[in-house]
Amino acid sequence: MRLAVVGAGAVGRSVVELAGEHGHEVVAVADSSTAVVADGTGGPGADDSAGVDPDAVVARKSERGIVGDDDPDDALAADYDVLVEATPTTLGDAEPGFSNVRAALEADRHVVLANKGPVAERYDAVRALEAESAGSVRFEATVGGAIPVLATIEGIGAGRVSAVRGVLNGTANFILTRMAAEGLGYEHVLAEAQDLGVAEADPTFDVEGTDAALKCVIVANVLSGGGFSLSDAEVKGITDVPGSALDLASEDGRTVRLIGEATRDSVRVGPRLVPEHGTLAVSGTRNIVQIEIENAGRLNLSGRGAGGPETASAVLADVNRLPER
Amino acid sequence: MRLAVVGAGAVGRSVVELAGEHGHEVVAVADSSTAVVADGTGGPGADDSAGVDPDAVVARKSERGIVGDDDPDDALAADYDVLVEATPTTLGDAEPGFSNVRAALEADRHVVLANKGPVAERYDAVRALEAESAGSVRFEATVGGAIPVLATIEGIGAGRVSAVRGVLNGTANFILTRMAAEGLGYEHVLAEAQDLGVAEADPTFDVEGTDAALKCVIVANVLSGGGFSLSDAEVKGITDVPGSALDLASEDGRTVRLIGEATRDSVRVGPRLVPEHGTLAVSGTRNIVQIEIENAGRLNLSGRGAGGPETASAVLADVNRLPER
Repeated sequence: MRLAVVGAGAVGRSVVELAGEHGHEVVAVADSSTAVVADGTGGPGADDSAGVDPDAVVARKSERGIVGDDDPDDALAADYDVLVEATPTTLGDAEPGFSNVRAALEADRHVVLANKGPVAERYDAVRALEAESAGSVRFEATVGGAIPVLATIEGIGAGRVSAVRGVLNGTANFILTRMAAEGLGYEHVLAEAQDLGVAEADPTFDVEGTDAALKCVIVANVLSGGGFSLSDAEVKGITDVPGSALDLASEDGRTVRLIGEATRDSVRVGPRLVPEHGTLAVSGTRNIVQIEIENAGRLNLSGRGAGGPETASAVLADVNRLPER
Repeated sequence: MRLAVVGAGAVGRSVVELAGEHGHEVVAVADSSTAVVADGTGGPGADDSAGVDPDAVVARKSERGIVGDDDPDDALAADYDVLVEATPTTLGDAEPGFSNVRAALEADRHVVLANKGPVAERYDAVRALEAESAGSVRFEATVGGAIPVLATIEGIGAGRVSAVRGVLNGTANFILTRMAAEGLGYEHVLAEAQDLGVAEADPTFDVEGTDAALKCVIVANVLSGGGFSLSDAEVKGITDVPGSALDLASEDGRTVRLIGEATRDSVRVGPRLVPEHGTLAVSGTRNIVQIEIENAGRLNLSGRGAGGPETASAVLADVNRLPER
């Protein structure tokens, strides 16, 4: 398939780099201010690709902060099969992601999202646009990084899944793991996580539970057919968890994890006590998801929940699941 | 879809019972000596289904040991869309499963296998028949029960998976778990497992590693495109694991698990030392599968690896993945 990649952060760049390995071709890339669009002419007898040069795009982005000399809007006007929407997640109107999704669907193209905003905050609107389009929307990469949470739910059948819960934010989990292991306080461990690049300079989304809640909202939308946004979620982060709470938990063979849960009726995120060596107590930046299935008990999936190549691999797996255009 | 279910053990009966919930209809059921085939006539104005009555089939099987008054061959001649092959796993020629698969594919019907034999022992022949047929073959239920191992590999792309390993036999895992927890010997725990119905009267397939090896052979066939059978696997069971080995392991923070591993080049099954609280050390009859993925690290899936309803749910998930006929 021919991909237009909008958003040139870690995920967008990894998609550009890895698309070829998955048998796809990148024909346009945009960041917030520039774009590069393949000219699509290989010339007579040419066997060269009509796609953009992935290495050149990534080099321009890291060296000069641009992806090319074209206008970002040119990427959306390019001749692509699949829009890969990898702009930053935004709340409320979920822009510019939502408008990018709309432009692609109105042009009867497929959309694969790495951006959580449109399917967390405006799920019903995205599905309505999809219903009018020849294109399809997929968004595996928005939940659990490399863990195929949504494909697994789809395979099981959303109607047979009663609940999904787990550790869905690697930064918060890293902080809780380090606090418990070293007996250190929240602020100290946060600073360490920032030094290591595990936490961002502004860690609010991760430590306040917003990121985990968005993922749970997306799952709740999949389970129920829609209707959820972040405002429907009951969310509590880890900023108020004292080191003493972890010590107390440890004496009882338990520890604390930031657990998100989605059902057909509710979304909740908050710190919970879990058994110290139990399934939910994954360490460091790993994620785990438990899927409760009728007649089949509980399925646990754990793996890398974030990272450019990991998330890009989820994006490209989605591309492989799309029908041919 | 209209299902013909061949094999009326725990899995076959659960498929008959649960098919309706998944939106499918059972039109024929056979065990080794009898069958019931729906007559397909509802009569004028009748809104009754043309399928067989699931409750009546299950009752006849448990009370009288038969599923109906028809000949088993009549089930294969019925007007069905999908053959559910749930006869017992056999080695070598994998009969009667293989011939049932052939009959269905030659009639351009789909096949969903719960029986490991045909895809472990005669994978290439099954794929050759499928290539000539309008029907497709799926076999999620043959590996890991309720854990969607094959669908996950398919979603990732088999070419990107370098290895699959894990605990794939619940009976052997139950025995090792009990030996470690209670300090009891193999024979003692085996007898207990037989009393509980966790181990069969003849536990050879489970404790010698054959069952785990067949599952790994199937995975190796999926990863490599075929060519493997049980004779290519290096297999060692748990019958020689002394209680003292578990004590020694425990002193070092480890325990013993029967681990199977499949790559594109090899299949190995045997008892291995694993960290006591590590991911591979699942307890009791649970199964765990680790999938090594390029650019996405290691994905862990754990859940119920066996059981009638669990395996039937994997069969019916496969039915849902088939193209309409």
